[in-house]
Amino acid sequence: MREMFHLISRTSRKGGDLMKGNMPTMKDVAQEAGVALGTVSKVFNGLPVGESYRVKVEEAAKKLGYQVNQYARGLRAGKTYTAALIIPELSHPFFAALAQNIYTALAQRDHRMLVYVTASRPDIEQSCLNMVRQNKVDGIIGLTYNPLELDADIPFVSIDRSIAPDVPCVSADNYGGGRMAAEKLMELGCRRLAFLRTGSSSSSETDRRGEGFITTCRARGVGCESLLLSDDDPMELFLDFFRARMEGGRLDIDGIFCSTDHLAWQIRNMLSGLGVRVPEDVQLIGFDGVRRFGREDLYCSTIVQPIQRMAETAVDLLLGGKQTSTPALVCLPVSYAPGGTTRE
Amino acid sequence: MREMFHLISRTSRKGGDLMKGNMPTMKDVAQEAGVALGTVSKVFNGLPVGESYRVKVEEAAKKLGYQVNQYARGLRAGKTYTAALIIPELSHPFFAALAQNIYTALAQRDHRMLVYVTASRPDIEQSCLNMVRQNKVDGIIGLTYNPLELDADIPFVSIDRSIAPDVPCVSADNYGGGRMAAEKLMELGCRRLAFLRTGSSSSSETDRRGEGFITTCRARGVGCESLLLSDDDPMELFLDFFRARMEGGRLDIDGIFCSTDHLAWQIRNMLSGLGVRVPEDVQLIGFDGVRRFGREDLYCSTIVQPIQRMAETAVDLLLGGKQTSTPALVCLPVSYAPGGTTRE
Repeated sequence: MREMFHLISRTSRKGGDLMKGNMPTMKDVAQEAGVALGTVSKVFNGLPVGESYRVKVEEAAKKLGYQVNQYARGLRAGKTYTAALIIPELSHPFFAALAQNIYTALAQRDHRMLVYVTASRPDIEQSCLNMVRQNKVDGIIGLTYNPLELDADIPFVSIDRSIAPDVPCVSADNYGGGRMAAEKLMELGCRRLAFLRTGSSSSSETDRRGEGFITTCRARGVGCESLLLSDDDPMELFLDFFRARMEGGRLDIDGIFCSTDHLAWQIRNMLSGLGVRVPEDVQLIGFDGVRRFGREDLYCSTIVQPIQRMAETAVDLLLGGKQTSTPALVCLPVSYAPGGTTRE
Repeated sequence: MREMFHLISRTSRKGGDLMKGNMPTMKDVAQEAGVALGTVSKVFNGLPVGESYRVKVEEAAKKLGYQVNQYARGLRAGKTYTAALIIPELSHPFFAALAQNIYTALAQRDHRMLVYVTASRPDIEQSCLNMVRQNKVDGIIGLTYNPLELDADIPFVSIDRSIAPDVPCVSADNYGGGRMAAEKLMELGCRRLAFLRTGSSSSSETDRRGEGFITTCRARGVGCESLLLSDDDPMELFLDFFRARMEGGRLDIDGIFCSTDHLAWQIRNMLSGLGVRVPEDVQLIGFDGVRRFGREDLYCSTIVQPIQRMAETAVDLLLGGKQTSTPALVCLPVSYAPGGTTRE
């Protein structure tokens, strides 16, 4: 009980009375500083504002004795202003970029971010979810791969996997991206195509990448082979696949679409070991749009996921409140970017 | 007040009485499941355990009606079981790896992680800190670059920057790493060395990298030039530096130590543009040990930071409680790893 009494005594010590609403508000600070309410919110939430605005707001807050008190704010609103992000890992550049963009989108909505890392393991995903349940958050954004027992009380937005009809899922337009990769390779003169994938063995929106690619090849009457592995399969199977298609030192494939940039990078190294040149002998397109050091050049020609828009859309859906028609799936448009593994 | 009453009614509804301590504890669950207490803690905190153990623990918890209740736990202990990480960005691979390792170290100590991203900006660093103050955390791990007004009430552990004598700082052995780079380049036959850096203009432990390198060169009587830029300086100054040292198409430098892997990668591209071959004409060593896609090969030969140990040490110092002699600075040993930009 100590914590509660502490909270009460702290609020009354502030001079005002929380219950009577006598404490200065953000609106008071905005008026005192002569700035917009949004500017005050930005300063208190660590978002960029001009230095002169920041100083004005902080001086006004000091003068009025205003303190951002998340707990008091939460008590008033019945909210925690906290969202949880459940993500497979932070050290992979796609997930790192996604986490950073979700952080920014949450901060813009005055929410802080609790992070849970799962290594894509079903047991860890479920126990992270169980922990979040106890942790009082306003909502969860989950990038999970395995069946979950969700809690109807806590809003949940999924990324890249449709969990249930009433749980909105945000993803890139994976199907359209696969189609774009096929069209681009054909446009660049490829006639013997292949689709390669590896990743989680459970079904997700990212499976649409291969479907879009293969369907487009078929519709255009262009041959397409494919090899779909899961993370449990040895990478050597790709090598066997290539070896079986080498004739007189030449590969009988001239265009490859890989399900991720990471795989494209591994395949490029593998081809190099076989003496096959990229992009001279075979052109290669990946998926994700991951950049070296988070900001430098691409690893390969690629279908770029709209990470910032995905993050903003997920946060909007999470915090937007009950809507009459929450979408089951939102697919956001992708784009093609050349990165040295195609002739353009 | 709604939240508090809710909390109280919820605890009494559980059948037991929190104040009287009649609710099942983790110890009860361990006894019921026939496993060690540590195993129960792991399951409840989302850490890997054998599947059979997880099932046993979850069944025992269900049978006893045990629920991990972070709030109740916090009320009992006067703790939040939450730590804040203040970090410049998540999308740079070094920070991403550090965040992931700090997450794991915190989870092993039953703590969750709130993340704050600052873009290294002084105003955002300070306002993140102000927010954390209001957010009730047990402690803060900060990777900050600018002067901060700290709060004596909240434990703070700094990474890479000594903030104040009573605020412990954890870093790699930056000085030793610089010395190691100099010795390695000399061992590989280099006699005309250079040290290049870019980064924040404010002083930090990472400045020791150059000091260790330059001091070692001097002590061994080997010539060493240096160019130290800050993030505000144009990268073209490095190009000017090289151009002024080209004679008849050859660079008058045969070994370069860069303050980060990121810079080493940029310098390598720059040298390539000048027709200088790495490692044939000039050998290059970076600092960090960053890997492609978080797990693949290194970008360059490098001094590897012990990221996992740094994370664990920071968490230990943060949660270890008041000690009679908290160290002001803990430097952890680095190692050398060849990565294609040296002759070994």
